[in-house]
Amino acid sequence: MQTIRTAKAMMAWSAAHHREGVMIGLVPTMGALHAGHRALIKAARRSCDAVVVSLFVNPAQFGPKEDFSRYPRKPRADAALCAKEGVDVLFAPPAEEIYPDGFQTTVSVPKLARRWEGEQRPGHFGGVATVVTKLLAIVRPAAAIFGQKDFQQAALIQRLVQDLNLGPRVIVYPTVREADGLALSSRNVFLTPEQRQVAPVLFQALKSGRAAIRAGGRSGAAIQQTMRQIVGKESLAKIDYLVACDPDTLEPLKRVRKQAVLLGAIRIGRIRLIDNLLVTC
Amino acid sequence: MQTIRTAKAMMAWSAAHHREGVMIGLVPTMGALHAGHRALIKAARRSCDAVVVSLFVNPAQFGPKEDFSRYPRKPRADAALCAKEGVDVLFAPPAEEIYPDGFQTTVSVPKLARRWEGEQRPGHFGGVATVVTKLLAIVRPAAAIFGQKDFQQAALIQRLVQDLNLGPRVIVYPTVREADGLALSSRNVFLTPEQRQVAPVLFQALKSGRAAIRAGGRSGAAIQQTMRQIVGKESLAKIDYLVACDPDTLEPLKRVRKQAVLLGAIRIGRIRLIDNLLVTC
Repeated sequence: MQTIRTAKAMMAWSAAHHREGVMIGLVPTMGALHAGHRALIKAARRSCDAVVVSLFVNPAQFGPKEDFSRYPRKPRADAALCAKEGVDVLFAPPAEEIYPDGFQTTVSVPKLARRWEGEQRPGHFGGVATVVTKLLAIVRPAAAIFGQKDFQQAALIQRLVQDLNLGPRVIVYPTVREADGLALSSRNVFLTPEQRQVAPVLFQALKSGRAAIRAGGRSGAAIQQTMRQIVGKESLAKIDYLVACDPDTLEPLKRVRKQAVLLGAIRIGRIRLIDNLLVTC
Repeated sequence: MQTIRTAKAMMAWSAAHHREGVMIGLVPTMGALHAGHRALIKAARRSCDAVVVSLFVNPAQFGPKEDFSRYPRKPRADAALCAKEGVDVLFAPPAEEIYPDGFQTTVSVPKLARRWEGEQRPGHFGGVATVVTKLLAIVRPAAAIFGQKDFQQAALIQRLVQDLNLGPRVIVYPTVREADGLALSSRNVFLTPEQRQVAPVLFQALKSGRAAIRAGGRSGAAIQQTMRQIVGKESLAKIDYLVACDPDTLEPLKRVRKQAVLLGAIRIGRIRLIDNLLVTC
């Protein structure tokens, strides 16, 4: 496995592989890789000839009061995981390579960024859209693989790629979970043992929402109420949002028709957890 | 010459030519082509193996009170000019191909867009940055050629291409002028004979600013005053701005050091004219 740290060298690698007809798969990450990322890498290997994993803790997608400096970093373990999974290139640029002096361009996907995580984390999706546009321009992959855990992010990136004609197929891979249902996340390491015990309540709430739909429930408000009651039983957990939305627009549904995405975010102490379930009637 | 109307067909053409190692030059235009565009096409042919001219009157870069519906359109003459100049592809998509239902992504280059044309034409540069990002993603040229007449646009596009790692070399080609100095522009056809006679005053003002610098003048305010006096003599002409700026940041200069760009915009009746001169001390 090769580690590349500059955009120029990464573009040269990609250009050389394009000339050979190689289909490149890109897995963009912020490092602190876990089994969820491993599943994305395996999916990339299945659908492409060569795999690039980018590792960049993107300062632009953290708010001023967020955990950029505390975000978990373990570059050696990340490189070992990538090498073991047969990754061809680990693209790990320093921040000044991505945001050099004078940098000022921003990409935004305003409607999809407005609600939910966008409301809780102002500026977050602007940072995501901009860095993903850059990574796709640098790596020029045939496919880019994202986790479904960040459903709003995945929806926004699909829109962005289509709107700006960026080219790659966007693959959204199902969320990988612990045995008790907690969605894998690099931030889970921050949970105390007590908080960790409470954390699966988010997935339980989403499952109760899904069960309500499967039982014939169609009222968005009622499904939301069902989910909120589950989380409400845990005094350590505070709800940011728990809603049934249109999977394309992410607007809340008054009535569920064909499909809904149940989106949830809770806080346990200082830790935010997000998760979602896609439900087809 | 081939005319292509869909992004998908354009991307396929480019991909096929990339595989053959062909260097593509792109000349983005809004049509109503004149000798200034012809010079850009010739420059593209000199530096590239194949030339794509895009023809798209971009609604997103016109303000609600601007002249989108009145903008000159002459698609047959444009196609004839391109064919005569040896253009390989005329990429002329309909608006719904560029902005399909649900489109919402925008690109902005906020610092370079703030002043001058950005102030006079709110939203203009957002529309320019977004459509240029799309055209570059669709055509994937090795070089993109823009006219210096739109100096702020060219500066913004250079920044955008660098910031988003879009790849092509950006070539800025000197302004082509009428014998009396008036910069060629598709909008010049709107000038009445009387207005046409007055129009060269903008270039005369910029030349007087250049002469002041060449004579040792270094005060931004004094150079500005020199230029304003020239336009002030023409009662039909109203000044939007006439300034000496840093060519990289486009911020006004208190003192001219190595280089300045003299930027000007005037109104004659309902017609706006812009022009500029780059001056090295």
